[in-house]
Amino acid sequence: MTGELAFIAALRALATDPAARGLDDDAAVLEIGGESLVLTHDMMVCGVHFLPGQDPADVAWKLVATNMSDLAAKGAVPIGVLLGYQLSAGTERFLAGLGEALAHYGAPLLGGDTVGGAGPQTLGLTALGRATHRPVPTRSGARPGDTVWVTGAVGGAMIGLEALRADPAADPATTLRYRRPQARLAEGRVLAPQVSAMMDLSDGLLLDALRLARASRVTVTLESGAVPLDCPEPRRAEALRWGDDYELLFTLPAGCPCPVPATRIGTVQDGAPGRLLVDGIDQGEAAGLGFVHR
Amino acid sequence: MTGELAFIAALRALATDPAARGLDDDAAVLEIGGESLVLTHDMMVCGVHFLPGQDPADVAWKLVATNMSDLAAKGAVPIGVLLGYQLSAGTERFLAGLGEALAHYGAPLLGGDTVGGAGPQTLGLTALGRATHRPVPTRSGARPGDTVWVTGAVGGAMIGLEALRADPAADPATTLRYRRPQARLAEGRVLAPQVSAMMDLSDGLLLDALRLARASRVTVTLESGAVPLDCPEPRRAEALRWGDDYELLFTLPAGCPCPVPATRIGTVQDGAPGRLLVDGIDQGEAAGLGFVHR
Repeated sequence: MTGELAFIAALRALATDPAARGLDDDAAVLEIGGESLVLTHDMMVCGVHFLPGQDPADVAWKLVATNMSDLAAKGAVPIGVLLGYQLSAGTERFLAGLGEALAHYGAPLLGGDTVGGAGPQTLGLTALGRATHRPVPTRSGARPGDTVWVTGAVGGAMIGLEALRADPAADPATTLRYRRPQARLAEGRVLAPQVSAMMDLSDGLLLDALRLARASRVTVTLESGAVPLDCPEPRRAEALRWGDDYELLFTLPAGCPCPVPATRIGTVQDGAPGRLLVDGIDQGEAAGLGFVHR
Repeated sequence: MTGELAFIAALRALATDPAARGLDDDAAVLEIGGESLVLTHDMMVCGVHFLPGQDPADVAWKLVATNMSDLAAKGAVPIGVLLGYQLSAGTERFLAGLGEALAHYGAPLLGGDTVGGAGPQTLGLTALGRATHRPVPTRSGARPGDTVWVTGAVGGAMIGLEALRADPAADPATTLRYRRPQARLAEGRVLAPQVSAMMDLSDGLLLDALRLARASRVTVTLESGAVPLDCPEPRRAEALRWGDDYELLFTLPAGCPCPVPATRIGTVQDGAPGRLLVDGIDQGEAAGLGFVHR
């Protein structure tokens, strides 16, 4: 992890454009021709981000949805995608899922690259979107007194992955939230003009909330019992640390009503910068709070 | 190869945006806010596109340069890049080369993603550029009577790769053209208003010339002896089929003087569409003409 963080810090130092914040945010924002272009790139590796035996159609869907979720966190409308595809068995199914996802999100395939290679399949997707509200939401705008909210529920992807690991032919309804995550694009657009900070949940609610607290240099306090679950209650602690939910986590100024269906799960306080309190207990550093990409 | 072509054809069918041509062209062109944005995505896999023991700084340079070469073929000025980095040994060297390349090409790092994974390292780069001339050059505009040109010389990357394979500590000057390809951005910008068609050489002069002939639905005739070499004369036939040269191949309307240092190597004829003649001999299909990504 240290190596990764050092690498990311070094990459950030290379980012000479002051508007660049993709490496520690959901997406980069580029001002071009009077528009705010939102750019994101996500990679997925077989055995890390998806199961070796998984239906390639679901893999393609998830590849698209994770990038769309980054656009959602910026309140952006999809423009299109570029695909990096490492050739592998299951191309027909991959194409089927890719077509479904791109049609669902209204994002045409603009271009890309195909490569060979013998290792675990690696995929990349770059998504472009057009911001609908400026300033474009960031993770860094939460202020003391703000309320903290989350769309939907968490834990569904965890249940789905467990079911799929146990049985590749598991009930599709049970595994749906892992296989076919839904990016909250519509909610993101409605929220963009209202939020003080916004991000999508990809690595676990607690870890992502800590990242928001750090980016905003505030203390975020959450009530764990308030978070809606899409899994049995005894799994609550794990569900708050599990990734792949792709809900939106956001803050609203005090007194601002929430314009989309969502749940209030905490508040922003004027405490030490970059701290996360859950049920009053300081969570310390990131260890154990969620999924760290390595 | 059939599978790959079918995949690409299917991917192209998915590209509902008529402006999209990235999968059979060097880059996609997107009209946004009155600007023509040029977008390209290239992947590189260890063991396919670079040697397992190669200096990661050279790998990073090449990853940037190949994408910059795609921008050059569109006469575009770099805006920035998004990096997909699979963590691996040699990160410090990778960063060093990345920083050199980005500074050289004036392309800031806008964002990206880092992932784990145990297989051969896979890297992706998305580059964005701003077109300097519209219409943006394509592969499909060559017309009978046009002259065919190439910048620089070919064969240098072949010699460099051979030397590096034989000895990882080979004379750096000998391996330079393989390790540190130079994208022809300046030439591309000067050429863009003049050319009828333009592309960069990534998979071998003959294969790329055939692609230009197909895209333009013309017959391209080349004189193999006219092509400048950066390798010994006995290797000419191989050099014309070798990839990684990243020169620009372009056509000019009859009588139009070439505005950059380049060599005339052939003509466009009113023959069968999508044919390539070399020294008068029809080259048939793509087999054996260059490097096909698998």
